[in-house]
Amino acid sequence: MTTSDSPPDGPIPPLPRGWRMAAVHAGIKRNATREDVTLVASDLPATAAGVYTSNLVFAAPVALDRSRTPGVGFRGVVINSGNANACTGSRGLDDARRMAELAGRAIGAAGEQMLVLSTGIIGEFLPMATVERGITAAAALLAADERSTLTAARGMMTTDTRPKLAGGGFLADGVDCTVFGMAKGAAMIGPRLATMLGVVVTDAAIDPADAQRALAEAADESFNCVSVDGHMSTNDTVLLLANAAAGGRPLAGAGLEAFRRTLDHVCGHLAREMADDGEGATHVMRIEVSGTFDRAAARQIARTIADSPLVKTAVHGADPNWGRIVSAAGYSGVAFDPSRAELRLNGTLLFRAGSPVAFDAEQVSASIRDARETLIELSVGDGPGRIRFYSSDLTADYVRLNADYHT
Amino acid sequence: MTTSDSPPDGPIPPLPRGWRMAAVHAGIKRNATREDVTLVASDLPATAAGVYTSNLVFAAPVALDRSRTPGVGFRGVVINSGNANACTGSRGLDDARRMAELAGRAIGAAGEQMLVLSTGIIGEFLPMATVERGITAAAALLAADERSTLTAARGMMTTDTRPKLAGGGFLADGVDCTVFGMAKGAAMIGPRLATMLGVVVTDAAIDPADAQRALAEAADESFNCVSVDGHMSTNDTVLLLANAAAGGRPLAGAGLEAFRRTLDHVCGHLAREMADDGEGATHVMRIEVSGTFDRAAARQIARTIADSPLVKTAVHGADPNWGRIVSAAGYSGVAFDPSRAELRLNGTLLFRAGSPVAFDAEQVSASIRDARETLIELSVGDGPGRIRFYSSDLTADYVRLNADYHT
Repeated sequence: MTTSDSPPDGPIPPLPRGWRMAAVHAGIKRNATREDVTLVASDLPATAAGVYTSNLVFAAPVALDRSRTPGVGFRGVVINSGNANACTGSRGLDDARRMAELAGRAIGAAGEQMLVLSTGIIGEFLPMATVERGITAAAALLAADERSTLTAARGMMTTDTRPKLAGGGFLADGVDCTVFGMAKGAAMIGPRLATMLGVVVTDAAIDPADAQRALAEAADESFNCVSVDGHMSTNDTVLLLANAAAGGRPLAGAGLEAFRRTLDHVCGHLAREMADDGEGATHVMRIEVSGTFDRAAARQIARTIADSPLVKTAVHGADPNWGRIVSAAGYSGVAFDPSRAELRLNGTLLFRAGSPVAFDAEQVSASIRDARETLIELSVGDGPGRIRFYSSDLTADYVRLNADYHT
Repeated sequence: MTTSDSPPDGPIPPLPRGWRMAAVHAGIKRNATREDVTLVASDLPATAAGVYTSNLVFAAPVALDRSRTPGVGFRGVVINSGNANACTGSRGLDDARRMAELAGRAIGAAGEQMLVLSTGIIGEFLPMATVERGITAAAALLAADERSTLTAARGMMTTDTRPKLAGGGFLADGVDCTVFGMAKGAAMIGPRLATMLGVVVTDAAIDPADAQRALAEAADESFNCVSVDGHMSTNDTVLLLANAAAGGRPLAGAGLEAFRRTLDHVCGHLAREMADDGEGATHVMRIEVSGTFDRAAARQIARTIADSPLVKTAVHGADPNWGRIVSAAGYSGVAFDPSRAELRLNGTLLFRAGSPVAFDAEQVSASIRDARETLIELSVGDGPGRIRFYSSDLTADYVRLNADYHT
């Protein structure tokens, strides 16, 4: 497996064969320097898989894509930012279908061969004339160069401060295959209401069931291990499209395994990027929980710690206030024996056997202050369950971003 | 039922007969103007009931009080702020027992006749010499006047900006009874780690089982319907003590019912006060959820809305961004049909039948901005479940309070 992760300053990962992208500013967003319509197109029909929000209140494009994946014969994805097309009833569903038709027509495909992603404000109808203009303009710009790739990733952004890209290559039965992924923000960000969106494309040949399984497992290890503010979006979607342009037979055995490792890497990198670019964040929190009965229990403890405003503000303030972490674990709903718990913060043992451990608070504080990543390791027993979870700290900037703007 | 709720500027509710209080600054807190040891004493043996945090990681005083209530023969409560005596192992439990002994000795009772409350930083051992000094000094000041009452309530405070008191009277079998309650903060507030503590005392005669049932039900309707930051403390405790000084037989029938109504009022008032005094809060959010299958489901939806940082920042910013509210309900884990949901914000209908309703955003925004309380009403069907829940908004001041301080 070869990998190239990116930006803002790293190399742009290459697109797999047969894929082209473009994005334009159509006018859904007010700021004319921000792209808001993105097209992702395959020259060949592609297998597609998807994983979606579990929010009961889900957006129209989620309803549409969920009904279409996993499947074969897809030609691409149309994405808009600035409007989530959520809580928009049957008119919203008509609009999502219409977006697919317009995008299909623009690249010479049927509407049913397209998938749709939207992110932005909830509860407003899409400005369809603007969307149509954007699709037409983007279709004319489709290309496989680095500039197009970067612009496409920018076109998904809402309050993200930078595009999130990752890539990798692998060999399957002597055939050289490429995986490319892009994603946007993990915070559900208000008026300009964001979401977690991801698109992964490859030139490998993959059966739909294998694609779906690989994506579900990769997402479980990556995007499902990130929380910026605990607010689950109506629009969260990750799509995987495989167009077989690399040639060869559908992946199986070692080739499929190599693909899955590459996909895990791409999704893992994008997920960490989302936490790192959390709204207003000054720290990434890496939370490693172990010793639980199973993985789900470890995730539940990690997520409770990740979402505690008191833990998040303590990290922001470089305060080794470990009582907040232990008490968050205690109300997570997972049963464990506090007298067997051990907590380390950036490697320093702070709590063991139900009692505090003497430590150099100034040194631990400095270790938080001086690094972008804060490592929280909590072991709660000797069970086999463990997880790595990413989150971001809570800052006054997060509040400002989400309060000082008007719909 | 007569009631008198308080301060900062209202009247101080009177103490029931046979109760005295006092608080002093002993030196657990650094700030010498802040009381940190409080004594609550009854001249007669009292029935006691308690409700406690469900956090697995619970503090030593919680372990002690839980083992002693419900029961009879209690003479009072000793309270310290500035140190939670949590995550302190067996030494912490010894310290809590010793606090009870010292307080009992100071008022002429046995250690087993006392209950203990602590709030403050987690993971540090109590400065027992300081605590002992405080208990001795407070015992010398015990009185039933307004100044002692107010000082006692102040002695429980951590980052609370004001003491929280409520009272009421009722008639049982011709006997005039009084209920008095005091509580402190609903945020678990870090280094000066706070907690929800409440003490309710009455001169009525109540059997322990009736006291426990009445307190559990009152707490469920009040303190369990408040969340400031969703972080459950290790120390949350509400105690009810009834010393029968009013005379008469143990409450039953209509008398017990009158007591319960008074207790509900006292707890409800204290609970709303906690949300109103949430750290950094500029708004109280009153969240009314209805139409669920049962009350637990309504509470789960309300709590999810109450704890969403995006809902909390929108209220702070006076932004009628209702998509955040509906999407929070959607990820609460409670099953409902979004197409049957209806949302009102400060009385204005914003969302119905799965689609947005046109509304005057400027008018709704002004209604949020211009009032301390923001009313969120969400109906999700025609089930009998309903709840009223209080929370506070999320502000940059909350972040500053919790990040810009060092343990």
